[in-house]
Amino acid sequence: MDIAIPLFDRITALDAIGPYEVLSRLPGARIRWVAVTPGPYRTDNRQLTLVAEEPLSAVPHPDIIMVPGGFGTRVLMTPNPLLDWLRAAHETSQWTTSVCTGSLLLGAAGILRGLEATTHWAAHEQLAELGAKPTLKRVVVQGKVVTAAGVSSGIDMALTLVARIAGDEFAQTVQLGIEYDPQPPFHAGSPQTAPPHIVSALRERTRARLESLKT
Amino acid sequence: MDIAIPLFDRITALDAIGPYEVLSRLPGARIRWVAVTPGPYRTDNRQLTLVAEEPLSAVPHPDIIMVPGGFGTRVLMTPNPLLDWLRAAHETSQWTTSVCTGSLLLGAAGILRGLEATTHWAAHEQLAELGAKPTLKRVVVQGKVVTAAGVSSGIDMALTLVARIAGDEFAQTVQLGIEYDPQPPFHAGSPQTAPPHIVSALRERTRARLESLKT
Repeated sequence: MDIAIPLFDRITALDAIGPYEVLSRLPGARIRWVAVTPGPYRTDNRQLTLVAEEPLSAVPHPDIIMVPGGFGTRVLMTPNPLLDWLRAAHETSQWTTSVCTGSLLLGAAGILRGLEATTHWAAHEQLAELGAKPTLKRVVVQGKVVTAAGVSSGIDMALTLVARIAGDEFAQTVQLGIEYDPQPPFHAGSPQTAPPHIVSALRERTRARLESLKT
Repeated sequence: MDIAIPLFDRITALDAIGPYEVLSRLPGARIRWVAVTPGPYRTDNRQLTLVAEEPLSAVPHPDIIMVPGGFGTRVLMTPNPLLDWLRAAHETSQWTTSVCTGSLLLGAAGILRGLEATTHWAAHEQLAELGAKPTLKRVVVQGKVVTAAGVSSGIDMALTLVARIAGDEFAQTVQLGIEYDPQPPFHAGSPQTAPPHIVSALRERTRARLESLKT
């Protein structure tokens, strides 16, 4: 089972590694780290290198497409080879999935038109502009298209997917294997639970960061 | 603030990337990916490459030591340069931390003697053999030594650490930034909550995998 995870400059590492850690445990899983150009890619904070081992063209028909997000998605919203690949690969995929602002790329490829979908909480407006119906759920399943909310939600998304593919017992085995019994020290993981002044400050900082990347 | 994360063959990726995603957001954070020999390291399932950019000797005095786990820890339990580095770096660190079986390396370096500590649920016996007092808590803080349970627990550990270093509000901001509002699809993330037959089957499979790696 080929699971293609495209990399690009300024990816958010946990968006990719959360689902990787879960999906790679599927029987017969083969993770394919792909990019327009194979090679090293730096994460959003420039503090980690992830390596794309193959060009997109080496994996035209993955069984699962898993698109991570990151600030780097924003320069990939206009026509480009990654969107072309997504559109073509989606035609034959069993599952087309995303984490965080990875869904903006699915949207830009035209894959989310008319579908309920989600993304990082700070990017819901952009998702709507791409023809999707943004929802506040953490994992949104629409036929074979599965989108997840911000960064860490990819773990929940991937466990949901593993249950669909290999059954509930297998998904529980994977959950136990990664000891996923989360106990966050605060209740601040969503705009609904975090203190409002923290939400507005982070929203403003995110906007400023995106602006600075444009220049 | 230097945060050293040592890599080795057969590391578990999420053990490292969960804390990385949180700790790299600390003001002034500089993640140092180190190894006995710099270069690419393959994860436990051989499906991802992480890159150690510097030798251990380049970072003798990190502010934070963060040791990930993985099946590869087992061949590092006898005297070797990584244990020597851990022992020396721990003398000047502000925080010495681990995720999953990374605590076995702290234990083998003599750092956990007499301390409460934790590790992956399937490795508690080995931890006791190293002089630590294993506890079932997800994150265990003993002075400057902080150990976390299996794989995904590194996210909780790192948020706990960020709160101690930069305050609760900053930690909440990071939690909101990575949208860490976990909603696992099952209650199977610990041996206490997973169905018993799943726990015993996975315990047996883990033991067999470790045996096969010895040969």
